[in-house]
Amino acid sequence: MNRPGQGNPPLVSESRLRVRYAETDQMGVVYHANHFVWFEVGRVELLRQLGFSYREMERQDHCHLAVVEAYCRYRAAAVYDEEIIVRTSIKQMRGSVVHFGYQLLRAANGELIAEGETTHFALNAEKEITPFPEKYRKALRQAMGR
Amino acid sequence: MNRPGQGNPPLVSESRLRVRYAETDQMGVVYHANHFVWFEVGRVELLRQLGFSYREMERQDHCHLAVVEAYCRYRAAAVYDEEIIVRTSIKQMRGSVVHFGYQLLRAANGELIAEGETTHFALNAEKEITPFPEKYRKALRQAMGR
Amino acid sequence: MNRPGQGNPPLVSESRLRVRYAETDQMGVVYHANHFVWFEVGRVELLRQLGFSYREMERQDHCHLAVVEAYCRYRAAAVYDEEIIVRTSIKQMRGSVVHFGYQLLRAANGELIAEGETTHFALNAEKEITPFPEKYRKALRQAMGR
Amino acid sequence: MNRPGQGNPPLVSESRLRVRYAETDQMGVVYHANHFVWFEVGRVELLRQLGFSYREMERQDHCHLAVVEAYCRYRAAAVYDEEIIVRTSIKQMRGSVVHFGYQLLRAANGELIAEGETTHFALNAEKEITPFPEKYRKALRQAMGR
Repeated sequence: MNRPGQGNPPLVSESRLRVRYAETDQMGVVYHANHFVWFEVGRVELLRQLGFSYREMERQDHCHLAVVEAYCRYRAAAVYDEEIIVRTSIKQMRGSVVHFGYQLLRAANGELIAEGETTHFALNAEKEITPFPEKYRKALRQAMGR
Repeated sequence: MNRPGQGNPPLVSESRLRVRYAETDQMGVVYHANHFVWFEVGRVELLRQLGFSYREMERQDHCHLAVVEAYCRYRAAAVYDEEIIVRTSIKQMRGSVVHFGYQLLRAANGELIAEGETTHFALNAEKEITPFPEKYRKALRQAMGR
Repeated sequence: MNRPGQGNPPLVSESRLRVRYAETDQMGVVYHANHFVWFEVGRVELLRQLGFSYREMERQDHCHLAVVEAYCRYRAAAVYDEEIIVRTSIKQMRGSVVHFGYQLLRAANGELIAEGETTHFALNAEKEITPFPEKYRKALRQAMGR
Repeated sequence: MNRPGQGNPPLVSESRLRVRYAETDQMGVVYHANHFVWFEVGRVELLRQLGFSYREMERQDHCHLAVVEAYCRYRAAAVYDEEIIVRTSIKQMRGSVVHFGYQLLRAANGELIAEGETTHFALNAEKEITPFPEKYRKALRQAMGR
């Protein structure tokens, strides 16, 4: 039940991907930099679920999300050809900054493979830090459950 | 001595790189798509040796080299941490098309790892096929030994 | 109509993927080496449709498909966030060699983005060229429509 | 002069690389996951400077460095074709855990592009967490200036 002043539960988007051979390394598991590529897949799907595409955000509104911080904690190895669930949510948004949280799960059994966070600045066409355009701010706030 | 109709020997540029862990796959060797990234490293170094940078070619002259064909024949596996020599030459140039040839060699013993070719169209700022700007045409022709 | 001695039509597998931001380059389109990664996605899905997984092929039967040749012809640019269809078929199989063909199509309108081919040797656990294990040979031949 | 309890200054290894076209994205700068690949280039060079190669560490001593945490803070964009200096040091080592620190600098002017950290467990051939073999522990401790 939502009491006054509480709002909706935060949106958690889920997308799925299958591990590619190209993403493995000679240790026989997924190379650790690819997790950040997967985080981005999740980020874009979360935005899509909010009703807008990051492609249009860049093209039409000249609003870019520049990464300023990225963090990942690796819990278990991801292996070739398995299905991965990317769970993404918005942790915080304020002014020109948005903060995403991620979990990577093994689809077969729900095991946590990794979790991480990224922080982004909104940039305008001149690549200057800029507040989020109103329509995005509204959608992002909604996704945070506020 | 250059006799009439003969010209200089074609320029063969050599650049070196070291195999990164990220470039290996779970078969324990370099993943085959990376060879095309290395070809590009060679291509850029050949241009640099001709006295201009591909970066400036894009930035100042709005001339882009779009890949239209790429081919690689794999002879031997490249392994983690070894040094690779990328040998690049220009095979052909005509109008808007330039054709590069590549050899990847194991630096330790000169063994041929792969050889390949790429074909490119010159594009202008509007991404239309365009003849090479005169200064590039001249340099490229020179590199072909003509 | 299938006459005696002719067999079924060849299997063409279709898989879909969405272009990742990581796959673009500063020309604003997908970097050309990624098409080979997508070919591999198609190859693996074709095998899966034949009833076996490449992962198990490596793990259980110690049969590896080493790339010996790769070719791509680029027809149109693939752009960020669009959906791509990878259409894969087996062109030829003989002894230890299998030859795949690929088409990359823009899902939105069916436009051909690229087409290509790869040739592979079957390798055993010792990384020696080996004839395909019978079960794979049978399935691959079936996929060729014979 | 080394006074008791002080030791040598910690080793800071420097390696150089040139930004590849494949590493850029459509924002016109280096895609953020590549910084972790560059950190790894620095890590391997630091080990090489200590007199051993990570390749041999894996091959001969079956000691693998599995990444358990990775962090990067992005300060400025890295652009195509520029030279990057990767500065790497060992922050901590204890039992089975080693902690590296990195700085990425623009070679042209020394500007800080990014800084980060990675934490690794040593794994044995069975992929179990294991204390560092004595010869590595000694070298790593030395690199920390102790």
